[in-house]
Amino acid sequence: MTQTGDLRRRLAVARGDEPADLVVRGGRVLSVFTREWLEADVAICDGIVAGLGSYEGAETLDADGAYVVPGFIDAHMHLETTKLLPSEFARLVLPLGTTAVVADPHEIANVLGTDGVHWLVDICADLPLDVFFTASSCVPASQFESPRRPFTPGDLESLLRRRRVIGLAEMMNFPGVIAGADTELAKLAVARGHVDGHAPGVLGRSLQAYAAAGIRSDHEAYTAEEGRERLRAGMWLLIREASAARNLRALAPLVTEFGPTRMAFCTDDREPEHIAEDGHINAIVRDAVALGVTPEDALVMASHHPALWHELGSLGAIAPGYQADLLLLPDLERFVPEIVLKRGRAADEIPATPVPEWVTQSVRIRPVAADDFAIEWEGGPARVIGLVPGQIVSESLVEELSEGTADPERDLAKIAVVERHLGTGRIGLGFVRGFGLARGAFASTFSHDAHNLVVVGMSDGEMVRAVERLVELGGGLVVVDGEAVTAELPLPVAGLVSDRPLAEVIAASEATVAAVHALGSKVASPFQSLAFLALSVIPSLKITDHGLVDVDRFELVPLTAETGALPRLEESSR
Amino acid sequence: MTQTGDLRRRLAVARGDEPADLVVRGGRVLSVFTREWLEADVAICDGIVAGLGSYEGAETLDADGAYVVPGFIDAHMHLETTKLLPSEFARLVLPLGTTAVVADPHEIANVLGTDGVHWLVDICADLPLDVFFTASSCVPASQFESPRRPFTPGDLESLLRRRRVIGLAEMMNFPGVIAGADTELAKLAVARGHVDGHAPGVLGRSLQAYAAAGIRSDHEAYTAEEGRERLRAGMWLLIREASAARNLRALAPLVTEFGPTRMAFCTDDREPEHIAEDGHINAIVRDAVALGVTPEDALVMASHHPALWHELGSLGAIAPGYQADLLLLPDLERFVPEIVLKRGRAADEIPATPVPEWVTQSVRIRPVAADDFAIEWEGGPARVIGLVPGQIVSESLVEELSEGTADPERDLAKIAVVERHLGTGRIGLGFVRGFGLARGAFASTFSHDAHNLVVVGMSDGEMVRAVERLVELGGGLVVVDGEAVTAELPLPVAGLVSDRPLAEVIAASEATVAAVHALGSKVASPFQSLAFLALSVIPSLKITDHGLVDVDRFELVPLTAETGALPRLEESSR
Repeated sequence: MTQTGDLRRRLAVARGDEPADLVVRGGRVLSVFTREWLEADVAICDGIVAGLGSYEGAETLDADGAYVVPGFIDAHMHLETTKLLPSEFARLVLPLGTTAVVADPHEIANVLGTDGVHWLVDICADLPLDVFFTASSCVPASQFESPRRPFTPGDLESLLRRRRVIGLAEMMNFPGVIAGADTELAKLAVARGHVDGHAPGVLGRSLQAYAAAGIRSDHEAYTAEEGRERLRAGMWLLIREASAARNLRALAPLVTEFGPTRMAFCTDDREPEHIAEDGHINAIVRDAVALGVTPEDALVMASHHPALWHELGSLGAIAPGYQADLLLLPDLERFVPEIVLKRGRAADEIPATPVPEWVTQSVRIRPVAADDFAIEWEGGPARVIGLVPGQIVSESLVEELSEGTADPERDLAKIAVVERHLGTGRIGLGFVRGFGLARGAFASTFSHDAHNLVVVGMSDGEMVRAVERLVELGGGLVVVDGEAVTAELPLPVAGLVSDRPLAEVIAASEATVAAVHALGSKVASPFQSLAFLALSVIPSLKITDHGLVDVDRFELVPLTAETGALPRLEESSR
Repeated sequence: MTQTGDLRRRLAVARGDEPADLVVRGGRVLSVFTREWLEADVAICDGIVAGLGSYEGAETLDADGAYVVPGFIDAHMHLETTKLLPSEFARLVLPLGTTAVVADPHEIANVLGTDGVHWLVDICADLPLDVFFTASSCVPASQFESPRRPFTPGDLESLLRRRRVIGLAEMMNFPGVIAGADTELAKLAVARGHVDGHAPGVLGRSLQAYAAAGIRSDHEAYTAEEGRERLRAGMWLLIREASAARNLRALAPLVTEFGPTRMAFCTDDREPEHIAEDGHINAIVRDAVALGVTPEDALVMASHHPALWHELGSLGAIAPGYQADLLLLPDLERFVPEIVLKRGRAADEIPATPVPEWVTQSVRIRPVAADDFAIEWEGGPARVIGLVPGQIVSESLVEELSEGTADPERDLAKIAVVERHLGTGRIGLGFVRGFGLARGAFASTFSHDAHNLVVVGMSDGEMVRAVERLVELGGGLVVVDGEAVTAELPLPVAGLVSDRPLAEVIAASEATVAAVHALGSKVASPFQSLAFLALSVIPSLKITDHGLVDVDRFELVPLTAETGALPRLEESSR
């Protein structure tokens, strides 16, 4: 709550005894409580709404019939995916109407531990964007991944003591939760109530168990049936529109079916180009309305409801005592705000976040040579990761191979995951089909969730060159053609995030995609696809620095496929 | 949250790997989230719902098509009004479907201080009814009343540390809050967020100020317009059906207008006879449905919504992880449960609460004589309290009096408030019209909010007799005719609550009413009316041990009316 002194003045403004700092006049003000448009002035005092009604202020903003709505709140997202420092991210999304986000910092947590999370929380403290955090529950995502160090329940407890850390982040180890694994129950015991979920495809009794553990949200539902089951099980349905995973179209009918109760929007993982071109939460509101959701319902799901789920009691509404985060919208179709007020004022120029040296020294790799990527192979069936365009799942394929090398004729590239936190020299090796490379290599240190270095290439030498360049950059994305580095996006902050402005990040990012395409690939977002190939909790065949992971069986498997094993082309049931 | 050990078993039950303790089969289960009726078994483990679906259990309860709904939660009430010990109250309301209440203990707080509140919290701890408390914010209700001792912000802070004390109770000093009075802001600063409101008739900028103080509920709205303004101001609308104040009929149309969002039911002050004859929260649900609210909306307002407002995260729904408080209803008209399960089982016999001696020694009065009630009067206009049948407001009348005595011809009785906590001998004297007494006296130590002794009579001697009898009883209600005590209801617990079973309390209560009627009165509930005549925050003319209070001007006034003052027969604007 606010200081008593401020409150006294706010009450005087509310009573009309003192002028407001600012009065927004002549707008149609959304009541998120009654879903009405109210013709009322909004009186603002010390960044907080003092009253709705008829008021005078030191300044007046003529809304001129605009729709005045609460600032948007992203119910679940990962800052690091935007590749931007929080200051730059705030510059990008505030004008789009996003005034608060709830971020799970599990990318930086894998790379820089609790130190990294505390740093991220600290640098967000003074932004004109409200950034709340959840304590990353799954570092590592599984025992097959190698973060710099795993998080303990004690780590989580310390994070949860911070004012801006409001709960436990998505419990991605849903099989562990459902099975009642000690490790997962210990984390839940620390959380004391507010826990985000992550349960892709989980239904029936498994979902009942997941909910019975006290997990009351999920952002992974991608069918109406999944959504319906989650609502009935008492879980908030966080409707996700990420760059890779788009669930709005499937879930929007549930708003018509049940009303917007216990539904909210989130972006989860949105790339910077995606936000710059299409928008952020406002784009989800726009698309929801285009799909038939009423504007009022969509706006409530973008503001009041995320605040309700996360118990952010002073956000998400335009009413007395609520923070004056408000948007003036010229229409209820495009949802691009004319004016954004954060804590009652237009955002000042946001100073760039200073980046200390220690967060830029995260890539520690034992020197590699071409031999390190050589695969001794005596012929026979091999497991091959099958890329699924536009999806984060992969297929588990089996190919007869005569040699342990890439083969452009059969669209077979080599893939390696190089442990990059402790310089252990541990490397997992395998094959991937679907990138369509004719030659060259590309590599990234942004690789869910442990963010080890992942490299795909058509020759061992080009893979070495890519790794070496990433070490020089301190992390990022690189593309190599022969000896030449043809494009690169440095991500010096933990090997995940750029220290440059949005425009530079987007230009470099586009250049890396173009450079991969110049190697023959037609994959729309090759680095996005690459980023999920080491994520050992998404079916079906993935690779980490420990080797190939059969996610369905949840175990490490050798490169050699079992005799008699059949190609498994279908997406596994989850 | 629950212990890890219990959680492990609950998950096994949810998965179907272990049998539930109890399975409720064959019912139609209300989802408060989607407002659907689900055909599903409810599997219960350790008193908590493990899952909905198809389950086996050690025991099975055949619901046989009944409606299975969450237990009802009273969003705001005062236990003491029921005149029953909490154990006896639980015996009364559990079979009616009330499985949790949120109680403001401000009656006992006025009499026994924080000691009394702690005792009340303690004796409720092991009941099969969940009793949550709010810390009484207004002890005394105003400076014109004399509790045993006033509560300080420190007292509130200590109460708020208790696990079952979930917030600050109704901020009855709404003029003080709106004006930004130091005393009230200090209380709000202690509360840190969860504060119940009480703002009868407050509208416009005053309401904006009240809400801007962070007060987000009100149970005093009695017109649709008031309700609408509260909802728009971000306040929960707690729809009250007390014994005296009935607001459902006026507010039910708002459910149709806006849906049930941010609306819940409460009883506030329900007398024992009222509950026994008509019901508790279930009666409000029944009446709401009769007024056109859908059964699903009414049930949600009686269960899930009170839990939402009070952040009782494990109550108010039938879903995995929620406490298994559930009712089997044979129909959606009468709302009388066939079976009530509390924490997954039928309630055992509830042992009577032991009453320690110190809570029964609360009536401390300096001995009174007839002289103490004598009014020296030299003629002229006098202020007279005008009883308004069935209301807690009073009128401020002016009568020409020739003598300072009661007058049955003009329906004028004498009224006195005797300070009864510290034995100061302080007595406030005045006249009241409307009881219709021909003779005799009646008196009570249950007298909002300070619960001093209030006595109404037609002769000073009968008034003395009534006071003396109350001292002998240690508090309660008595009726005197001449020398005889014609009826009495002893309330030895703080002078507020009986230590006897419900049936005895009701019989004695009815006898006191009959005895007042035998004195000539036709007032339906004379002791209820009496109980509000000393409440100095309800318009218009009231009386405390300090004398007459003009509530509209919020000051003490003499018995002598101003020269030229006109009778004020209209209900004052508030």
